[in-house]
Amino acid sequence: MMSTFPSLTSGAAGHAPHAGIVYLVGAGPGDPELLTLRAARLLAQADCVVYDHLVGDGVLELVRDGAELIYVGKQDRRHTLPQEGINALLVRLAQQGKRVIRLKGGDPFIFGRGGEELEELAAAGVRYEVVPGVTAASGVSCYTGIPLTHRDHAQSCVFTTGHLKDGTLNLDWNNLVHPRQTVVIYMGLNALAEICRQLVAHGQSAEMPAAVVEQGTTPQQRVATGTLATIAAQVAARNFQSPCLIIVGEVTALHEKLRWFGEAQQRPENAGVARPQHNPGPMVSLEA
Amino acid sequence: MMSTFPSLTSGAAGHAPHAGIVYLVGAGPGDPELLTLRAARLLAQADCVVYDHLVGDGVLELVRDGAELIYVGKQDRRHTLPQEGINALLVRLAQQGKRVIRLKGGDPFIFGRGGEELEELAAAGVRYEVVPGVTAASGVSCYTGIPLTHRDHAQSCVFTTGHLKDGTLNLDWNNLVHPRQTVVIYMGLNALAEICRQLVAHGQSAEMPAAVVEQGTTPQQRVATGTLATIAAQVAARNFQSPCLIIVGEVTALHEKLRWFGEAQQRPENAGVARPQHNPGPMVSLEA
Repeated sequence: MMSTFPSLTSGAAGHAPHAGIVYLVGAGPGDPELLTLRAARLLAQADCVVYDHLVGDGVLELVRDGAELIYVGKQDRRHTLPQEGINALLVRLAQQGKRVIRLKGGDPFIFGRGGEELEELAAAGVRYEVVPGVTAASGVSCYTGIPLTHRDHAQSCVFTTGHLKDGTLNLDWNNLVHPRQTVVIYMGLNALAEICRQLVAHGQSAEMPAAVVEQGTTPQQRVATGTLATIAAQVAARNFQSPCLIIVGEVTALHEKLRWFGEAQQRPENAGVARPQHNPGPMVSLEA
Repeated sequence: MMSTFPSLTSGAAGHAPHAGIVYLVGAGPGDPELLTLRAARLLAQADCVVYDHLVGDGVLELVRDGAELIYVGKQDRRHTLPQEGINALLVRLAQQGKRVIRLKGGDPFIFGRGGEELEELAAAGVRYEVVPGVTAASGVSCYTGIPLTHRDHAQSCVFTTGHLKDGTLNLDWNNLVHPRQTVVIYMGLNALAEICRQLVAHGQSAEMPAAVVEQGTTPQQRVATGTLATIAAQVAARNFQSPCLIIVGEVTALHEKLRWFGEAQQRPENAGVARPQHNPGPMVSLEA
């Protein structure tokens, strides 16, 4: 087969052991259309894809037929393979001369532990590249109409995680209570009530608007909006499940005005107007 | 022409006035390969593209032949068209029934003023959608080997801007001096020395590692690393120009170990190994 991608094949002719390489790739926030061109191209030529829980099915459909798919989990605290095992697996596959894609939800360098995996690869002398992805905060922000920054409301945004460790949260709360700052909390659903309590205890207004977004950017996206005083009860009543993203800040109040995806299709002014569909059937052609 | 994208054409048959729509699209951090599939698809079918200074030439090459290209600038403080003019232009083009792409560097909802433009569109009853992009912080992080979060070094990251306004900086310094937090400053090159001084004045260690990245993710990428005490002089000596991104935090020290793009090609251990090239000539086919 003639390839139009000399870049990806020139170093791997015959799959000699020295040609093994690991591409640490961000899979984006959910909607497979939010994958980068480079990520899609690499998936179409992979020998092997090592992927996490948060990578959507639609993304995996872009993987080359015949490539080996290896699921390494990370669903809540039930790690299918411990981090050390993942690191060792990547080194081994690359040393076999394979073109390995290490695929992570969102961006590999924002709560992706990508750094730890690269340190291992570097120590083992394995070649690698890193392909950024649209992080969940950006994806959810755009698909809910909640700008993370806005001249009138927020001049900075901070991303942190709300993972419970032994049942408690170890966050720098003072860091999360500043005027004109949007706070985005990844993986915080189980700690939502505690997060709201702590932010108020550390000086944030109980009336500060907040939003929780379930399965952002996918057709199943659901959005809850309220305040630090009300949001946890709403989310519990609607039985939100992981993955969810929490956004705290004045900008979340813009959702009502700016929303366009999913729920917005039901707005009267859009009735009768054909809405573009996401994820149209045939994907772009990535091979010559 | 038969189209495989009914989603994008069904609502715009004949370009009746009601079919006008604005897609607010993130162009990513520089490398055109970091555009999303959805963004590339939309550019290939645009009637009109309204774009900023920070959108790279490679991205514009993906625009449909025959589409109207409108540059609205924003280079430093010399705005080619004031924000109000951009808002009005988008409304007018959409009301003419056009499929308009409003293309912004990075992500439209992180320092993109996307929110302001959407508020105007919503008020005028214009249909729109938002397509997230890889924000500069993610792109630069991945292309320099500087993870924004890392279990050993940073549990959160904050993004802010270093724009000088009337010669002074109006930043919430206390917000930017927290342990285990990576700070990313967009558009801060001209204020770099002052930023370093203020961070130290507000309690940050002068020995805290920092990096400045010029033209991140492009073949022209340059990286300076040092500390808050040394980085400004280095960047001045090497005559860095905009656009630059500033990263402050322990994670920046990982660049030496994890870097792979550009400069890393010169490392001895990579000598003789064919490196994948970025931006291979022929782009993916986005039309049937």
